[in-house]
Amino acid sequence: MSTTKTIKSALISVFSKDGLEPIVRKLHEQNVTLYSTGGTEEFIKNLGIPVVPVEEVTSFPEILGGRVKTLHPKIFGGILNRQDNASDIAEMKDFEIPQIDLVIVDLYPFEKTVASGASEADIIEKIDIGGISLIRATAKNFKDTVIVASVNEYAYLLELISTQNGETTLEQRRLLATKAFNTSSHYDSAIFNYFNQNQEETVLKISEQNGQVLRYGENPHQKGFFFGDFEAMFTKLHGKELSYNNLLDVDAAVNLILEFKENEPTFAILKHNNACGLATRSTMKEAYLTALACDPTSAFGGVLIANGTIDEATAIEINSLFCEVVIAPSFDEKAITILSEKKNRIILVQNEVALPQTNVRTCLNGVLVQERNNITDNKSHLNYVTTIQPTEQEIEDLLFASKICKNTKSNTIVFAKNGTLVASGTGQTSRVDALKQAIEKATTFGFDLKGAVMASDAFFPFPDCVEIAHNAGITAVIQPGGSIKDELSINFCNENKVAMVFTGTRHFKH
Amino acid sequence: MSTTKTIKSALISVFSKDGLEPIVRKLHEQNVTLYSTGGTEEFIKNLGIPVVPVEEVTSFPEILGGRVKTLHPKIFGGILNRQDNASDIAEMKDFEIPQIDLVIVDLYPFEKTVASGASEADIIEKIDIGGISLIRATAKNFKDTVIVASVNEYAYLLELISTQNGETTLEQRRLLATKAFNTSSHYDSAIFNYFNQNQEETVLKISEQNGQVLRYGENPHQKGFFFGDFEAMFTKLHGKELSYNNLLDVDAAVNLILEFKENEPTFAILKHNNACGLATRSTMKEAYLTALACDPTSAFGGVLIANGTIDEATAIEINSLFCEVVIAPSFDEKAITILSEKKNRIILVQNEVALPQTNVRTCLNGVLVQERNNITDNKSHLNYVTTIQPTEQEIEDLLFASKICKNTKSNTIVFAKNGTLVASGTGQTSRVDALKQAIEKATTFGFDLKGAVMASDAFFPFPDCVEIAHNAGITAVIQPGGSIKDELSINFCNENKVAMVFTGTRHFKH
Repeated sequence: MSTTKTIKSALISVFSKDGLEPIVRKLHEQNVTLYSTGGTEEFIKNLGIPVVPVEEVTSFPEILGGRVKTLHPKIFGGILNRQDNASDIAEMKDFEIPQIDLVIVDLYPFEKTVASGASEADIIEKIDIGGISLIRATAKNFKDTVIVASVNEYAYLLELISTQNGETTLEQRRLLATKAFNTSSHYDSAIFNYFNQNQEETVLKISEQNGQVLRYGENPHQKGFFFGDFEAMFTKLHGKELSYNNLLDVDAAVNLILEFKENEPTFAILKHNNACGLATRSTMKEAYLTALACDPTSAFGGVLIANGTIDEATAIEINSLFCEVVIAPSFDEKAITILSEKKNRIILVQNEVALPQTNVRTCLNGVLVQERNNITDNKSHLNYVTTIQPTEQEIEDLLFASKICKNTKSNTIVFAKNGTLVASGTGQTSRVDALKQAIEKATTFGFDLKGAVMASDAFFPFPDCVEIAHNAGITAVIQPGGSIKDELSINFCNENKVAMVFTGTRHFKH
Repeated sequence: MSTTKTIKSALISVFSKDGLEPIVRKLHEQNVTLYSTGGTEEFIKNLGIPVVPVEEVTSFPEILGGRVKTLHPKIFGGILNRQDNASDIAEMKDFEIPQIDLVIVDLYPFEKTVASGASEADIIEKIDIGGISLIRATAKNFKDTVIVASVNEYAYLLELISTQNGETTLEQRRLLATKAFNTSSHYDSAIFNYFNQNQEETVLKISEQNGQVLRYGENPHQKGFFFGDFEAMFTKLHGKELSYNNLLDVDAAVNLILEFKENEPTFAILKHNNACGLATRSTMKEAYLTALACDPTSAFGGVLIANGTIDEATAIEINSLFCEVVIAPSFDEKAITILSEKKNRIILVQNEVALPQTNVRTCLNGVLVQERNNITDNKSHLNYVTTIQPTEQEIEDLLFASKICKNTKSNTIVFAKNGTLVASGTGQTSRVDALKQAIEKATTFGFDLKGAVMASDAFFPFPDCVEIAHNAGITAVIQPGGSIKDELSINFCNENKVAMVFTGTRHFKH
């Protein structure tokens, strides 16, 4: 028996009529019997095309203000019968059930209604019952029937019926069924997430549509995908397609620069998700040049981000660096021209878009979920624990360093001075290693640590860190505090005239 | 008008009858009219309790081998009518539609059927149509009706009807509706994922049940959750609850040790997701002591993992270290006693469980998805690019180092010698920094790099790394290759009698 089927009848019942007309006309041309309800029935009639009301099949009117229209055994029998089953065929005849070959249904716009800020009563009314039942039944019986569950599939359907003379293959019907279950599961996930806003149920529902196939994942032998609305966040002015690793770096860059939104012109350079340069200055050009000087070696191939307009003067400087991505809220016309000289360089205008408040990542045989780290240390958080108090400039630098620290992989130690990242130790297995690495890097790039400040993402379990830092020239320290041995670090600072403040907030990041 | 409702009628139609009897008896005690179908109807009758067949309401028999049973306007009208709507009330009367206050339905076991390896035909037959329609309709109308969509809610329902005399509050009905949409969305996500096995649709569906609320996330001010079957992967013998950061480290540990499954006794110590010690030896005790010696500072508070049994001798050694978690496929009885001496220390027996082949993580306003990195470099991958060939021992060490490198955060450089991790640079913004850091660490802990080998997670864009490594004593190098300047590194190696092999496989990890 051939698995190819010909569409001879169709049930059409849609909320939005956009794009329906050519399909209805084509089906009519092919002598397809059309069944319909309410507004869709009117729409078809107005095209001058004959249509059978569903009520004529069911001998049961639409009731409860439209809440019950198609939920009838004659309709579901017409969809769900197995065309190769003798008993089904007999029952169809006995109960005068018409065969339904194609179902075109869309769902009430639930998500849009929620997003519009409608009342709960209006939102509840947008929970589709009949439509989704038709969709699921038709998809289940894809061996015999064709389901079109969204306007997104209209073009595909129109091509099928136009080029294949109303015939469909099993593979085509199965693909449409796959799309239908995508639609139904996405719909119910959205409803669930609406009902579960207060998180009474500890379950995780992610239903992301429109994935973008990336060239590959973290490495060329791994497949990679991005699910998200990149276009809402950025306008790409120039350059090649972003890679998986570009996206990870852009994410780190966007989170980092958000901390410096209110600062004077600030420029950051990132590599492997960590800042290797960051500075605040009175002009963007100066901020860039100072950020670059932090670690010109790492800056090679980096991701660059600014908290304000990139002007011509800054673009000229950037242009001599090999870098993958340049991000800013705006660019001068001339800056765009200059930065576009390199074919592959990606230029992104960053729009104001809220970042998700919940982060997920695969762990073991499941998923870890956590709230975004939304605390940025500020003056009101500071607990002055040493007899020596930091100067006003040191307090500014301590908070500046803390913002970088929060956005650097743990363990980390960050040195800063006069609105400049001087050096950092990143991703270390011990705090002392992070500190030593920061000192080594500062020395390599010719920085004098005298009068610089230090931030640590977590407390000091021993006084070794303040001692090593003091010997390197550090005069002020910011850290969460909370170790049972805090007193040892405080004592050392008091004896050696180092100022230290506690924030009470740890900033691990992995 | 009170929002409290009394259950006077119930529709019960379930696949599994387990746990149903006490509910049916209690409903009968409270004079609730029961409607039912097929097997459930039989079950109730056999309890000697009166039950009205649904067919008596609809005057329409079950058809198509059970595919269509309850899909009838009289049933859906009974569920969906708005009890405060005059026109609905009038239609109920006109069409002799009975009010249905409570619906108890479960779904065909779709996931279980897929997992059992059943045929596609059997799987498709397990796509529930009528049941899920009843569930969704009742949940939608939670203002008036009570939905019980799973055996998991039986206990809650029984308590409600027992203690509240058949009455339910709006809040209780809304909670049950929330659970119902959890059930329906999870079900359709599972169906979609089955249909989409060949990934024709680039969409992401995650529906994780039974989340575990963690004490907090990465930091105390962030909420944290784990969704996964921890118990399937591990048997916890001892210790406190695992934290978010513990789980991240355990994940890193499990992935790392998997690389050394076939090795002789191997022991690894991790901090902040990176190995700070790892060694293969003829006994587990020796492997542990050697791993610890790599970096005893970082080992403090670490996560420990073994690829074989932890015996008494090993446990005695471990016991003097402050560590958070100890993982092994098995422990000797005496080892358990010793390791359990510290109240908080977590002891995990690792079971053989497959890890997910797809990894997800939040990025920007969406999610990045990638295939697991499943390539482990082995001899057949090696391309000998220098005139000097590595010795057999060096080849072993190169592959050993490459396995660690793959599981360490980028940029990384790993040194190894005689089945021992000597030192590594981790999470660096430049490759040279990673290399310098590894040298600094090896020196700090007294290792002689003469004759040690080096692995790099990515290629060398310049010959500086091989030069610095050679000067430190490194005699063999493993790296992916693929830089346009590979020749410069190869030339340096040839001139300085360093052996180098290319693998063709990059191992970035962030």
